[in-house]
Order: sequence, then C-alpha cells, then structure tokens
Amino acid sequence: MYVFGIDLGGTNIAVGLLNEKYEMIAHDSTPTLVERGFDAIIDDMGMLMHRLLNKTGISENEIKYIGIGTPGTGNNDTGLANDNNNIGWKNFPLRAKIQKHLNKPVFMGNDANVAALAEYKMGSGKGSKNFLMLTLGTGVGGGLIIDGKLYTGSHFIGGELGHMVLRAGGDKCGCGMNGCIEAYCSASALIRHAKENLALHPESIINRAEKISARTVIDAAKAGDKYGIEIFDQYVSDLSDALTGFVNFLDPDVIALGGGVANAGEFLFAPLIRNFKQNAIFAEFVGTKLVKAEMGNDAGIIGAALLGEEYM
Amino acid sequence: MYVFGIDLGGTNIAVGLLNEKYEMIAHDSTPTLVERGFDAIIDDMGMLMHRLLNKTGISENEIKYIGIGTPGTGNNDTGLANDNNNIGWKNFPLRAKIQKHLNKPVFMGNDANVAALAEYKMGSGKGSKNFLMLTLGTGVGGGLIIDGKLYTGSHFIGGELGHMVLRAGGDKCGCGMNGCIEAYCSASALIRHAKENLALHPESIINRAEKISARTVIDAAKAGDKYGIEIFDQYVSDLSDALTGFVNFLDPDVIALGGGVANAGEFLFAPLIRNFKQNAIFAEFVGTKLVKAEMGNDAGIIGAALLGEEYM
Repeated sequence: MYVFGIDLGGTNIAVGLLNEKYEMIAHDSTPTLVERGFDAIIDDMGMLMHRLLNKTGISENEIKYIGIGTPGTGNNDTGLANDNNNIGWKNFPLRAKIQKHLNKPVFMGNDANVAALAEYKMGSGKGSKNFLMLTLGTGVGGGLIIDGKLYTGSHFIGGELGHMVLRAGGDKCGCGMNGCIEAYCSASALIRHAKENLALHPESIINRAEKISARTVIDAAKAGDKYGIEIFDQYVSDLSDALTGFVNFLDPDVIALGGGVANAGEFLFAPLIRNFKQNAIFAEFVGTKLVKAEMGNDAGIIGAALLGEEYM
Repeated sequence: MYVFGIDLGGTNIAVGLLNEKYEMIAHDSTPTLVERGFDAIIDDMGMLMHRLLNKTGISENEIKYIGIGTPGTGNNDTGLANDNNNIGWKNFPLRAKIQKHLNKPVFMGNDANVAALAEYKMGSGKGSKNFLMLTLGTGVGGGLIIDGKLYTGSHFIGGELGHMVLRAGGDKCGCGMNGCIEAYCSASALIRHAKENLALHPESIINRAEKISARTVIDAAKAGDKYGIEIFDQYVSDLSDALTGFVNFLDPDVIALGGGVANAGEFLFAPLIRNFKQNAIFAEFVGTKLVKAEMGNDAGIIGAALLGEEYM
C-alpha cells in the first residue's frame, strides 16, 4: 500500500507518493497561485496525484489514504479547512473536494505541525517521547508531540507556539498581538532588528550586504562585528527565554530548531543550551536536549503522509 | 479499599484518608516545621497516617497506595524528591522513607500539579480532555492535563507554567529569571505593582487599607478608584496575554483559574475572556472555556490521592 502526502503552501502545491515506510517514491509540484481560488487549487492537487499514479504505475486501489498540511487550521473531525488566512480560505470543504478527485480517507493538519511530526518520527525526534520543534523562519512555527502523538488541541487550532507572548506590549506581531515569540525569534525579527539601528552603525559590516538575511547578521557576529554581536546576543537572549519557558512548562526529551537561523550551528546552540540549563527552575535536573532539525524540505509532504498514523 | 493523600506544604503536612471514589473519609494535619529536617517530617506523615487508621478502624491491608504532593519535583521513577528548594530537600529518598512507616506503593507529584489533577477529575475540568489550571496566589502554579492524563514532562520537572517568560527582561521572578508569568500574574505581583507607585496617588482608596491584599486592589478598581483601575487593567492585560498564548499553543477545552485573585469573579473573567477570544490567532474558532476553579483547600490531598490512577 501507498499514501499521498500533500504540502500546500502559499507558493507551491507539493504532492508526494510514499510507501509504507513513508519513503518518497515520487513527487511533483505546481505553483499555488492563491488568487485563482480554492477549487482550482484542489483540481491541481487531484491532477498531481493522478499524474504520480500514472508515472509510477501504482493503481488507485493501492492508495491507503491522503494526508494534507495547510497553512492554517484543518479540522480533522469535520473535514473543513477552518482558517487559512494566508490563502484566503475559511471553512472550505477540503476533505470532500479532494475526495472528488480520489476517494480515499483524507487527514488534515497544520503545515508546521505536520513538519514537526515528520521531524519527530523520522528525524531528530526519533525515539523520544515528548518533543517540541520550533521553526525559525519568516515566522515561528513548529509543533508539539506529547507521548508520541501530535498534539493539536481540543479544536484543532493548537500548536501555535510562536504566538505565546514573550515581551508583552512589545513589537507588533503578524497575528495582531504584540510581543509574540514570533516577533522576536523568527529570522525576520533578527533581520528587522538588525536594520532598525543600522544607520547608527556605519562601521558595521552588515552595511556591506546587498540584502540583509539572518545569515548576514549571524556571520557579522561570528566575525566579531560589534553591532552584529549586539543584535545576535539580544536574539539569543530572547530565544533562550522562550526555550527556558518551554523547558519549565513541558520538560520535553528533545527540542529541535529548524529554519534558516538553525544553520548558525554551535555559535547559536552553545549559548542557548547554556542559558536554559542555567535558568530553568529545576536547572540541575534539566534533561532536555536541544538539537538541529534534520529533515529537509520534504518534511511537509512526509509529515502530511504521517497524519494517517495519527488518526487512522 | 482506601488510599492516602498527603499534601506537604511549607506550613502544614496534611494527610487525608479517601475511599475508592476519592471522597475524604478522615483527615489530619500538623505543622511542617521545615527546619527540623526531612526525617522528622516523614515521621510525622507516618504518625498521621496511623492515627487516621486508628481513628477510622480501617486496617493497613485495606490501603491500596499513598499519593504525595510536594512543593517541588518528585521523580516517580526513582522515588526521590529531587528538588524541593522551599523546604531544603534535594534528592531525598521520599518513597523509601514513607514506606518504612507504611509499606505501600507511593506515588509522587508536584503540589500544584496534583491540585490541577484534582480540579480536572472532580472539579471544573470534569469531562474535558485537555485542561489547564493556573493558580494565581503567592506564585503562579498549576498543571496541564493532556488527553485525560496529568502531564509532568519527560523528567518529572514539567508543569511549571508560571515560569514561562511573559515580559523578557522584566521584573525579577523568585525563580531567578526575569519577567516570568509569575512575576506579573500572581496575587503577589498585583499587590507589588499596586504598592510601587501608591505614594504618588494619595487620593487612591488603596491607601486606606491596613494591609494591601489582591482583594484591596480589586475592590478599589470595582469601586472606580482611578489608580486601582490602572493597576488592575495592567494585570488583566498581562494575564490576557498569558492566556491567549496558552490558547494559541494548547487550545484546551477548559482553563481554570484558582487562587485568591480568581475570587474577583466576572469583573476579572469578563475582560479576560473577551481578550483571548479577540486576540487568539484563530480567534473565530476558539472553543476554550475560562472558568473559576471549584475545588477548595482539599485539592492538594485529593490530587495526591489521584496520582495512583495516573501511575498504577
């Protein structure tokens, strides 16, 4: 038997065909083109699935289910994609529409949550029991695994760990609140903070970059650039506070960091680990490991495919 | 069959004898007198248990197990009370010592966590699946129930929800960090903030109180006192940010508020509910109910007794 994993993003629709070990046999993608609306996007999902069946010679009968991750909430009880603001969906009948193209069980989840599920089952979380992943990218997404199961809350809207408040009354967050973890710990926040006072620091090598990325700031800090260090240290301090809070509250086996910022390696991880091991309330007994996420871009497809294990 | 629940606090050792429905048949207590040390305190636990057996005519054979909540961490695998800073314990052999007085299975937990367990099983959380309790007292304690089970983390040090950071770099918290939820949302924080600038507000009726309690501030705000309202509104804003974060991350069925502050009733609950229902990232789909905790002082004993259900 085989399963489909669909990773729906604002930019691309990516579909993978996986075997029972969740190894990707074949995959294909097409631009999302959000503006054309719900029906056309689902039609393309159907088209991609059938194209993969044709290409591999696998028959519809051999497909067990379809898993899909969307950039919002998917209510796995009702089959509705409740709130997918990024792509303008609200209460759309995602399950029913997909089943018109391929009549199989359809399981739904949030894209960042399912990527965390993939990381848990096949990446850095393998073998652990309680696992937290934070993806430090444009936003801060991620997911929580408790006792081996993906935790999505009581109404399928949980898992938004980037929108806990870290600096009440602080920087405006994309979600409308102020001071969320996302507003301080995302790659975008690192870049924004670097730009804020850059004009006051003409000596900083950050000025030489054509386009300032998280990597620009991190490399500047690594090179000893004073302003770069100042910005990076503040970022580490904020992320450490967030991580210490998660350790105090959830005491997981493993916290994995993904996204571009996590590529900073030891330069980032060493101070983070030192800080949360020092500052946690039961510091001496902290057993949480902080690691870099291992799964690449396919985590979204694989995690979506893994939803069947969670719900079947 | 019967069970013992022991609630060990910095002030009192309280022991209850409960039937299979976790109804308290008899209870007794004695001052903790922390300074006399571990052995003497455990001896008193043994004395209280035997006194209750004598008083009720129940025999040792009818006791199924002993549950105990302590003001720190209890490692239920090793039987050690790892870190109970308040009472100066570290890695003390709690299980083994109690069993010298009554040789039954002994289950251990954090006092605030077990009180949340009692609230979940017998109080405001009854019938829910995912439940969060915050006790707004001297500190901010509480506990998390996921899928009907008390969540204590991977190393029995989780559940410290009061020590997630709400205002990074903010007020010093008793745990050593800055800006924890406890430093802004405890009753003590409300009192501290009221006192801070009270001298600048000689017109405030808070000045008339002999001793300023959380209730003093809340009553002043209710009465329209301008300074009281200012302090109370800031408290509500901080607590709302914390609660919205928990809704975004955990999407529980129920959040219960306990402790003295929760007695403020609708005056407190109405703005809190309005705020988190407005500010949550998937605001329209928020299904979390915010309620007042129902269990009284016995929650510590009953919750300790309920540990057997969790671990047996």
